[in-house]
Amino acid sequence: MAEPRIYATYWIETAFPLQQAAETMAGEQSTGTFVRVPGETDELREAHAARVEEIVELGEVTAPSLPGSGLPRSGDATRRAARVTLSWPISNMGLSLPNVLAAINGNLSELKAFSGLRLIDVRFPPEFLTRYQGPQFGIEGTRRLAGVFDRPIIGTIIKPSVGLSPEATAEQVRGLIEAGIDFIKDDELQGDGPHCPFNARISAVMRVINDHADRTGKKVMYAANLTGDIDEMLARHDHVVAEGGTCIMASMNSIGLPAMKVLRAHSQLPIHGHRNGWGMLGRSPAIGMSYIAFQKLWRLAGIDHTHVNGIDNKFCESDDSVIASARECLTPMFPAPHKDCRIMPVFSSGQSARQAAPTFAALGSIDCIFAAGGGIMAHPAGPAAGVRALRQAWDAAVAGIPAAEAAGKSPELKAALEAFSG
Amino acid sequence: MAEPRIYATYWIETAFPLQQAAETMAGEQSTGTFVRVPGETDELREAHAARVEEIVELGEVTAPSLPGSGLPRSGDATRRAARVTLSWPISNMGLSLPNVLAAINGNLSELKAFSGLRLIDVRFPPEFLTRYQGPQFGIEGTRRLAGVFDRPIIGTIIKPSVGLSPEATAEQVRGLIEAGIDFIKDDELQGDGPHCPFNARISAVMRVINDHADRTGKKVMYAANLTGDIDEMLARHDHVVAEGGTCIMASMNSIGLPAMKVLRAHSQLPIHGHRNGWGMLGRSPAIGMSYIAFQKLWRLAGIDHTHVNGIDNKFCESDDSVIASARECLTPMFPAPHKDCRIMPVFSSGQSARQAAPTFAALGSIDCIFAAGGGIMAHPAGPAAGVRALRQAWDAAVAGIPAAEAAGKSPELKAALEAFSG
Repeated sequence: MAEPRIYATYWIETAFPLQQAAETMAGEQSTGTFVRVPGETDELREAHAARVEEIVELGEVTAPSLPGSGLPRSGDATRRAARVTLSWPISNMGLSLPNVLAAINGNLSELKAFSGLRLIDVRFPPEFLTRYQGPQFGIEGTRRLAGVFDRPIIGTIIKPSVGLSPEATAEQVRGLIEAGIDFIKDDELQGDGPHCPFNARISAVMRVINDHADRTGKKVMYAANLTGDIDEMLARHDHVVAEGGTCIMASMNSIGLPAMKVLRAHSQLPIHGHRNGWGMLGRSPAIGMSYIAFQKLWRLAGIDHTHVNGIDNKFCESDDSVIASARECLTPMFPAPHKDCRIMPVFSSGQSARQAAPTFAALGSIDCIFAAGGGIMAHPAGPAAGVRALRQAWDAAVAGIPAAEAAGKSPELKAALEAFSG
Repeated sequence: MAEPRIYATYWIETAFPLQQAAETMAGEQSTGTFVRVPGETDELREAHAARVEEIVELGEVTAPSLPGSGLPRSGDATRRAARVTLSWPISNMGLSLPNVLAAINGNLSELKAFSGLRLIDVRFPPEFLTRYQGPQFGIEGTRRLAGVFDRPIIGTIIKPSVGLSPEATAEQVRGLIEAGIDFIKDDELQGDGPHCPFNARISAVMRVINDHADRTGKKVMYAANLTGDIDEMLARHDHVVAEGGTCIMASMNSIGLPAMKVLRAHSQLPIHGHRNGWGMLGRSPAIGMSYIAFQKLWRLAGIDHTHVNGIDNKFCESDDSVIASARECLTPMFPAPHKDCRIMPVFSSGQSARQAAPTFAALGSIDCIFAAGGGIMAHPAGPAAGVRALRQAWDAAVAGIPAAEAAGKSPELKAALEAFSG
């Protein structure tokens, strides 16, 4: 039986012939050497060389996207873009995400043959599920803990990002709960600073959330940002559990995949994977990696939710890219009977009732956390009206009723659409 | 007494007025919100807002480096580059590298005001040394274990990168040791795959190294690539120690800072910090981060060596950038009496005797690991002559004798300069 393989797809830009450029990539990331050495036998190459699976030319480009690339010594030097897929046998790196990263990224971005090189997708064989646990709660588990089943989970974030005391944070949570919110998250800047220690903050917040749950039966999900060193994260997790919390949050780029694996193995709660820092990898079209590729690494490692930005967001990401990321979260990574590793996409950044219909139309699903800050707090009739307007906007979208028509029967939605007209 | 602060310097490109752009950065990464909220009091801003420390205009630019940026709604929209320094009080994030990352990188790269934004430096207050150990061996400790004191440590790498069995690896090590090498490293692609299990590889390699040390007194340093998940890395470290090894290697981008902290706390050996994957962050001049900034995070977390590429390398990095990185490794991060956290820069990538003189001239130091692959193996008179030529080239450089002149007295150096003429 053929050995399982890992597949990685790249966007490349090069002045070299595409076949040669793709083979350079495969060689650099497996058995290749600049000078052929005695140990590089045919058998070794047969067993361990990365393979060029596909090359799709995407057309000529007029100027190099990035500086520092080289030209062929002779012949045609037309610069082209292409999509290239490589594969590796899993025996090269073992069932190890850190070693997969070294293989699929490694030094590729620095190769002189390329004036652009970006990882756009990666596919794992299901054997990785024997070493990585994948999401523990995923979509269904998150819905169960949040008690929200037939619509998006409506979320928001604590603001200002940093500086509030534990008590002031809890007071803000109280207001948001009274407004009818389903989900609240710490800002990623709020960790465990001395002015707002994690344990004190979570204790204060959970007192408010638990009181409300006792009175009403609705337990709001609070994503507690426990980002830190490993021992700290495990201890903070235990504190959240002890206080009755239902979600933890970690900044993926801050902690790395091995720490996430440890956190996942320890966790009794869904893990909200915050992607801050991804712009460093994702912003340039010519380098880094797509969020399609990025999220798969982290889903395998165990996150249950991740941020995908939002339609018409305040950042630089295009709507197409946002929706591609969100749809990917809802797409199985592995076929049945394997765990599919689907997770909750989290829409955020400048979101309001205005984006409900286009988001539903593009996503084709209500399985998401739809988070708004100003889109709730700045509603002319207050935060409770802001939350209601968001729910009404989604209900209308799902029912196929245009927002403007639905607004005729809902003063909150009408006010939201007017206030957040973009 | 004023609270200690963290400083971060960025290269930015924006069509907004520079002061406004810098304040947007500071706001986004601390107390700012798009809509002013009740909790954002003057006292909170005074205590927790990031501060704009300096703005240095670098001139106008004709076109945006990256897509997706916005323009001011009115007024002048000249696009400019600038260098901006921000600072944060450490109480915002605590003494925590993962939370520092969220603060200094965070969502900055995605902000619409910028068509380029790159972290170029970061400065920590020495308080971080109460939480992070810094390098355990550094330059002096590495020299002591390698037994090389008055010249660069001459190094090389196992090739082909992946595919050799433990026994074939050990045979290659035997040849390199006989050639007089000081330092050998695993390729970053060689981890713990089933065809070359880590423990078997290190046992086979150390048998050769220990035999040679017993006979000659010279113990070659072997950087064993233990990159993996945390439990794996600790167990592999213990195996290296048990076999008498003197160095471990980890791919920094694969493991993350929290895993490095755990590894450093556990390690009895120098940690060779491999930077593969850095091209994703470093290749574009308009996004990501410089290696100056990157290495400081990892030095604080505990690495003892790191790669800086080499002069006239096979990759895309400029010589200026290479030398800036290398000099930074040799520059104290903290003033006395604090630990200075200086580490060994590792030159590699297309290096040979040819680059010794310009490297010494630019670095002004012999404190480095100077690694060559083809520059040793492809020497016309064999690997032993390759190693001798490298040592002779460095001796000549340090003595101020031009390489061509020194080559008159050394056939190995003469042959190397001819063979590796670039």
